[in-house]
Amino acid sequence: MAFILGIDVGGTNLVAGCVADDGNRLVGLLSEPTRAEEGADGVVARMVALARRSMAILQDEVPRASISGVGVGAPGPLDTHRGIVLLTPNLGWVNFPLRDRVADALQLPATLDNDANCAVLGEHWRGAAQGTRQALGMTIGTGIGGGLILDGRLYHGASDCAGEIGHTTIEINGRKCACGNYGCLEAYASGPAIARRAVEAVERGAESSLRELVEADPASVTAQAVYQAATAGDALAQEVVQDTARILGAAIANLVNVFNPEVVVVCGGVTLAGERLFAPIRREVVRRAFRPAVEVCRIVPGALTGSAGVYGAVRSFLDARAR
Amino acid sequence: MAFILGIDVGGTNLVAGCVADDGNRLVGLLSEPTRAEEGADGVVARMVALARRSMAILQDEVPRASISGVGVGAPGPLDTHRGIVLLTPNLGWVNFPLRDRVADALQLPATLDNDANCAVLGEHWRGAAQGTRQALGMTIGTGIGGGLILDGRLYHGASDCAGEIGHTTIEINGRKCACGNYGCLEAYASGPAIARRAVEAVERGAESSLRELVEADPASVTAQAVYQAATAGDALAQEVVQDTARILGAAIANLVNVFNPEVVVVCGGVTLAGERLFAPIRREVVRRAFRPAVEVCRIVPGALTGSAGVYGAVRSFLDARAR
Repeated sequence: MAFILGIDVGGTNLVAGCVADDGNRLVGLLSEPTRAEEGADGVVARMVALARRSMAILQDEVPRASISGVGVGAPGPLDTHRGIVLLTPNLGWVNFPLRDRVADALQLPATLDNDANCAVLGEHWRGAAQGTRQALGMTIGTGIGGGLILDGRLYHGASDCAGEIGHTTIEINGRKCACGNYGCLEAYASGPAIARRAVEAVERGAESSLRELVEADPASVTAQAVYQAATAGDALAQEVVQDTARILGAAIANLVNVFNPEVVVVCGGVTLAGERLFAPIRREVVRRAFRPAVEVCRIVPGALTGSAGVYGAVRSFLDARAR
Repeated sequence: MAFILGIDVGGTNLVAGCVADDGNRLVGLLSEPTRAEEGADGVVARMVALARRSMAILQDEVPRASISGVGVGAPGPLDTHRGIVLLTPNLGWVNFPLRDRVADALQLPATLDNDANCAVLGEHWRGAAQGTRQALGMTIGTGIGGGLILDGRLYHGASDCAGEIGHTTIEINGRKCACGNYGCLEAYASGPAIARRAVEAVERGAESSLRELVEADPASVTAQAVYQAATAGDALAQEVVQDTARILGAAIANLVNVFNPEVVVVCGGVTLAGERLFAPIRREVVRRAFRPAVEVCRIVPGALTGSAGVYGAVRSFLDARAR
């Protein structure tokens, strides 16, 4: 039975798993922290170790399994043809030959694609966007990425940089973003940005059950802590979640007006907030986008929680091999 | 010799012309005011009269010319399959069967496509985007429209509404737009919006050579008057043009980050401002977008001033016939 190894490199976690080339089985799904602060070499060593553990599980569970290659998804912008990470604000890499480093270490053919492209490819292959011709994927985690399936195929753009929706301006004089620009979506609605907005409000004196956490260590406040506080009834946290939905809704409305997709799949940890987030997102999109575009578009959480990037990295490898 | 009639329906002007089906000749290019206030029937009557005058010129100039059809470009959103204008805030039409009305009146097969789609199709066929695979067209006039050539073909989206870049939010709590939303690009950078921003500044007391015009009749101030004042050295007008460039630059940067095109072609009256507008637009895009996307992307005015929509309406007819 033929399998492909998929590795998803996130700002916070590495995920690896072995996917059958018909997409019907995922074996040995493993995850561990990225530890970007250990530098590119450290991260590659951890990726390779994780991949080996995943392949060992495959060999145990599917004795006659063969692994014919590795698909890697990583934050961009990338040069996918040369397999190079050009720049990642969240990992601090510049012109890093990730594909060949992984291929050499594992002695397998490898491909590299953008992590957000992989997430939407995975959701299109086996998840929430199956069967659609126009799909937009949005990955919200340490950063905000995007991927576009247009007329049934992944769209790469003129130089492999398409889909950077986290770095679109929604507030022209807004917050400074890690990319150097002002008012980017990512500066408001990534996981860390959600946490930061809550911390700032508490520091300005807002009443909240998050105060103790903020006073102990502002850096310890996560987006998940904000959702939990919101669910427990904290008014400030609820306001932060509402504002996040409004901001995400405006950004999604922009993309609905420009791409007119059948589905917008929102992936990543932020989806843990569930309907508390999705209901106001949908309301904001209805309020902002053109009706004929809104009417044909579902806005849904990803169906492959924790594995979309792995499925998509594998799909990207298969697509590259087919060309 | 085979010709197709192209008609471009704008919020301010109607344009018609006859284009040879190889794109090498344009004969009988004519234009006149749309007069949307006369209602849909009035506009159709004027379109048909204009078309007949254009075809008469063709018969004079190219005695053996034949006209095999009519391509119409109109503001959207549209249902191109059924040939219906669903909604146009600037013309006030709802569910209007424009294609069949024109076909019946002229007794010719007709097609309908979005005016901004036609502009980018025209520029891709015979103008500034020739030879590119990824091109973004932006039409700035009474409204702001957009059209996308992706992987060499016009992209329509799931329900024919793709490309509505005028209605993307760049300032989440910004100015109210004619579409009902807040902070749309169009609310800042369309021709009337540019004029309105200048008028508001004068009314708030800013010194300007435009004061006399504003005091006589604020509605008489046009974007062109603002450009002329800027060129003549008026500081307020120069500031309005600079702000417009900054806003357009932010919107173009968003699209560069999302689509990663080879060229952004800016069409419409606004291009009369020339380098005074394009130089700061390019600076803003460089400041805001990712370098690997910016490096491959030209930002240029349209090459087919006044005729891009006609060329594109004809190209759209030819593409529909080929399918």
